Amino acid sequence: MKASQFFISTLKEAPADAEVASHKLMMRAGLIKKLGAGIYNYMPMGLRVIRKVESIVREEMNRAGAVECTMPVVQPAELWQETGRFDKMGPELLRIQDRHGRDFIIQPTSEEVVTDIARQELRSYKQLPKNLYQIQTKFRDERRPRFGLMRGREFIMKDAYSFDRDQASAKASYQVMAQAYRRIFDRFGLTYRAVAADSGAIGGDLSEEFQVIAATGEDAIVYCPGSDYAANMEKAEALAPAGPRPAAAAPMTRTPTPGKATCAQVAELLNVPLATTVKSLVLATDETNEAGEVVQSQVWLLLLRGDHDMNEIKVSKVSGLDKGFRFATVAEIEAHFGAKPGYLGPIGLKQSVRIVADREVAVMADWICGANEEDYHITGVNWGRDLPEPDAVADLRNVVAGDPSPDGKGELAIERGIEVGHVFYLGTKYSRAMDATFLGEDGKPAFFEMGCYGIGITRLPAAAIEQNHDERGIIWPDAIAPFTVVICPIGMDRSQEVRAAAEKLYGELLAAGVDVILDDRGERPGAMFADWELIGVPHRITIGDKGLKEGQVEYQHRRDSATTKLGVAEVFAYVKERVKV
Amino acid sequence: MKASQFFISTLKEAPADAEVASHKLMMRAGLIKKLGAGIYNYMPMGLRVIRKVESIVREEMNRAGAVECTMPVVQPAELWQETGRFDKMGPELLRIQDRHGRDFIIQPTSEEVVTDIARQELRSYKQLPKNLYQIQTKFRDERRPRFGLMRGREFIMKDAYSFDRDQASAKASYQVMAQAYRRIFDRFGLTYRAVAADSGAIGGDLSEEFQVIAATGEDAIVYCPGSDYAANMEKAEALAPAGPRPAAAAPMTRTPTPGKATCAQVAELLNVPLATTVKSLVLATDETNEAGEVVQSQVWLLLLRGDHDMNEIKVSKVSGLDKGFRFATVAEIEAHFGAKPGYLGPIGLKQSVRIVADREVAVMADWICGANEEDYHITGVNWGRDLPEPDAVADLRNVVAGDPSPDGKGELAIERGIEVGHVFYLGTKYSRAMDATFLGEDGKPAFFEMGCYGIGITRLPAAAIEQNHDERGIIWPDAIAPFTVVICPIGMDRSQEVRAAAEKLYGELLAAGVDVILDDRGERPGAMFADWELIGVPHRITIGDKGLKEGQVEYQHRRDSATTKLGVAEVFAYVKERVKV
Repeated sequence: MKASQFFISTLKEAPADAEVASHKLMMRAGLIKKLGAGIYNYMPMGLRVIRKVESIVREEMNRAGAVECTMPVVQPAELWQETGRFDKMGPELLRIQDRHGRDFIIQPTSEEVVTDIARQELRSYKQLPKNLYQIQTKFRDERRPRFGLMRGREFIMKDAYSFDRDQASAKASYQVMAQAYRRIFDRFGLTYRAVAADSGAIGGDLSEEFQVIAATGEDAIVYCPGSDYAANMEKAEALAPAGPRPAAAAPMTRTPTPGKATCAQVAELLNVPLATTVKSLVLATDETNEAGEVVQSQVWLLLLRGDHDMNEIKVSKVSGLDKGFRFATVAEIEAHFGAKPGYLGPIGLKQSVRIVADREVAVMADWICGANEEDYHITGVNWGRDLPEPDAVADLRNVVAGDPSPDGKGELAIERGIEVGHVFYLGTKYSRAMDATFLGEDGKPAFFEMGCYGIGITRLPAAAIEQNHDERGIIWPDAIAPFTVVICPIGMDRSQEVRAAAEKLYGELLAAGVDVILDDRGERPGAMFADWELIGVPHRITIGDKGLKEGQVEYQHRRDSATTKLGVAEVFAYVKERVKV
Repeated sequence: MKASQFFISTLKEAPADAEVASHKLMMRAGLIKKLGAGIYNYMPMGLRVIRKVESIVREEMNRAGAVECTMPVVQPAELWQETGRFDKMGPELLRIQDRHGRDFIIQPTSEEVVTDIARQELRSYKQLPKNLYQIQTKFRDERRPRFGLMRGREFIMKDAYSFDRDQASAKASYQVMAQAYRRIFDRFGLTYRAVAADSGAIGGDLSEEFQVIAATGEDAIVYCPGSDYAANMEKAEALAPAGPRPAAAAPMTRTPTPGKATCAQVAELLNVPLATTVKSLVLATDETNEAGEVVQSQVWLLLLRGDHDMNEIKVSKVSGLDKGFRFATVAEIEAHFGAKPGYLGPIGLKQSVRIVADREVAVMADWICGANEEDYHITGVNWGRDLPEPDAVADLRNVVAGDPSPDGKGELAIERGIEVGHVFYLGTKYSRAMDATFLGEDGKPAFFEMGCYGIGITRLPAAAIEQNHDERGIIWPDAIAPFTVVICPIGMDRSQEVRAAAEKLYGELLAAGVDVILDDRGERPGAMFADWELIGVPHRITIGDKGLKEGQVEYQHRRDSATTKLGVAEVFAYVKERVKV
């Protein structure tokens, strides 16, 4: 490609609404152009990146035996009503009506449609396993779209769906996909981690997220540097502390803590470690009758160490809280505790409250909690002596760096990531809802065992940039760079020698299958280099009159701090060798 | 590809709602699957065809210097309000609202968005010409979607838009695209015709349709077998007859024609050629005030030969009718003619009517028309003698086969076609509406001169099938076949020799870059052949035990009536030679 034939549009400044590096740089480098909130034109430079991402994904999906199809963007509501998602999903599901007033949705994913295809087309166990995938436009009507392609409303996703005859086969299909994902992410040339994720009620351990590591990532990733353990924060287990609970040493004492309503404030006032305090979180569960009216509510007190954070997913798995819960109202809190939030604790409750202690809290001694009286806390609290053992003990908290790894192979570390892929065992959730069966070997109908597998095609470039950029711009891995090599001739319009050398090298690289662009726009060197550093093409070759007189051109990788002088005769082989595609 | 790894789903019967051959065959061959009215899943077999079409289009667009981008499916209404299309377009424009109640549309084309990009990104004449294109999902909410992908609601279109600094440059850009389209359609391997089309008020002759020739086509295509003249029916000019009007020979006679209200009935009753009758079409135009109220109406009488059909596009270009017209009401007709439709004519009108005669009628003598009296016609009517010369003479009719070609090179012929591409010079229609300007060489802002260029990516396969099928199924041209070659082994599961020979040939063809599928499903020969004949793979190689014993395999092109025996050693070279991709 010659730059004069292409569409290059760089900006000095990012628009004001661009908050994160990838959004700013994608706008400045002219990869995308905003059309509306969360809706972007993929400009020629950006589309080249997207197409390379698609192409790697497609090759590896095909290699893994998945078969490509395309399901419509606009889908009839009927199928979505079969699974109940038409009503259950929030306003992020864009609902529309056609000219005849019939309901449709714009696909955010395609479980319903693909299950509909399967129940019609896959009639026998002999046709299984099958994996159908598409690379297609999706829409989620995010309330607050932001960060450019990171959380847009319209986006491109690769979504694959596997259909199997039984769980064992479904798990094998899942593993085939998980392996394909590893190959895909390896090929992207990004630093990533496959982390175990929560799979809800079904699926056991068969849910993994593929996270591109970046300091700016939205997700906290937990991993063990000494092993291959990795999980997302929702999933990572906080082990029960080793060893028994220490014996009580301090007397229980009502202590004035005027105006100190948080654990941190109390610890500071009393000059004790935050880890000696216990925080009280009050939840409630409702029992409803057939009309959906609340007939009875139960209040729950969750106790966590002052320096720990509650993990909602874990709480939602506690028996009794697993059908849904809410935070208690202030009225409920006052009725049960006789005090306002900020001074709550498990001692001297007015009414029946079920107490669940985090594993850590369950083995603490001489701890501090609220006194259920404004401006007072209690110190030296001990289980058994000052209050009964908790009703339940569970893992309620997010792990923190330094916690023991669940695999026993060291301590956990935490880093940030951006989720760009997800593999998930679905079981029969959709096939049951849509009565999607095949004839088994025994001649009886059976529900398909399903899995689903997504990759955010348009999110991936944003994640790649969050991981790979500097103050001058983007630094693409070779595999997904809009162009792999740029040739920058200096004074091409003045010097016949420069033009000839540039055209010759351009032709050679092109013929060798290298994705090269020749900048023939006639920009001055400073502006030209700034453009390509912003756009992030990894390999640059500069050809100028001066160098040519000495038989030399300059090579610089986008990560290099200086140029390397190369003989004109050797530059082709040198670049060809360095390009990793 | 091996068939067992792929997704093959053929049907014996087409669904009842499939009316045309391409729809029936695409459903039966498992290329598409209906999801809703005019909305189809592109199944793996069909998607392969679509991808090949896309790929040819993309290569040739790139070669012609167009640059690919992607514009969103969901587009904010604001831009569509700038051009007025948000309000002017009918319900085929699918309008939606997001969760915040803001108006959006689903793109049927992207003139507004691309013009918005241009007015922001193309600031100087130095950046021109530019041509941006996309291959993207479109939606038109057709009232009556039918014929499968021929007239679907959701479809894929390639739409390109050129931006130029002046008309001369815009016309050059148009020609570049017209040439690229010829290369594209040549590569598809289809019989097609580029026909001149009407370009409305602007554009002169710069509008061509690319029509795939098929007996079942919706469009009538006019061409001259002795030259390269070709136009669609709207556009094809009916020349004024050569030679002068014959002298009057018959007396004007009021003739009873009881109950004969059509020219055909009158001609039959009077036993004269239909071409001696003249039909009367009554139109009206309205003059409105600023409030849009009709303040005055004018009635028009159009006279066409009894055997000719009115051409609305041509009528809409007659001076006085070029601002819009309607058919006159029965009340208007009775007020002006004093008679009911069926017996109307230009003689003895009650009120002022403007008379426009078709070129053919203007030179007729001794003709027959209605008497403006029920159950009566007038014969022997002659211009000048019996009524004044018409107010205007114009080309008002569709040409018919045998009419002289406008280029003077013979007689016109008519065939049917399916429109799959259109190139169109837009002028400044959109750039003016959206105030889209660039800085010209003179330092002054100027409106972009634009062109637009579409190809119906998903319609093309349907058109290809209408042109290329027989009673057994589809016959694909090599370039867009889902697979170019199929290897059908007979008894692969029983015979090691057959398996080995099939696998070897499969490997060789694959390595040579041939898109080959090996049918390893273990179907019986009859069912296997029927599948591939239905699917329409052009080249088939059958490998069986019997043949192998004699060192032979069988080759059959989908159009061949019998197989050709080939030596095992020569089959690879033979097929490689015959495959035209």
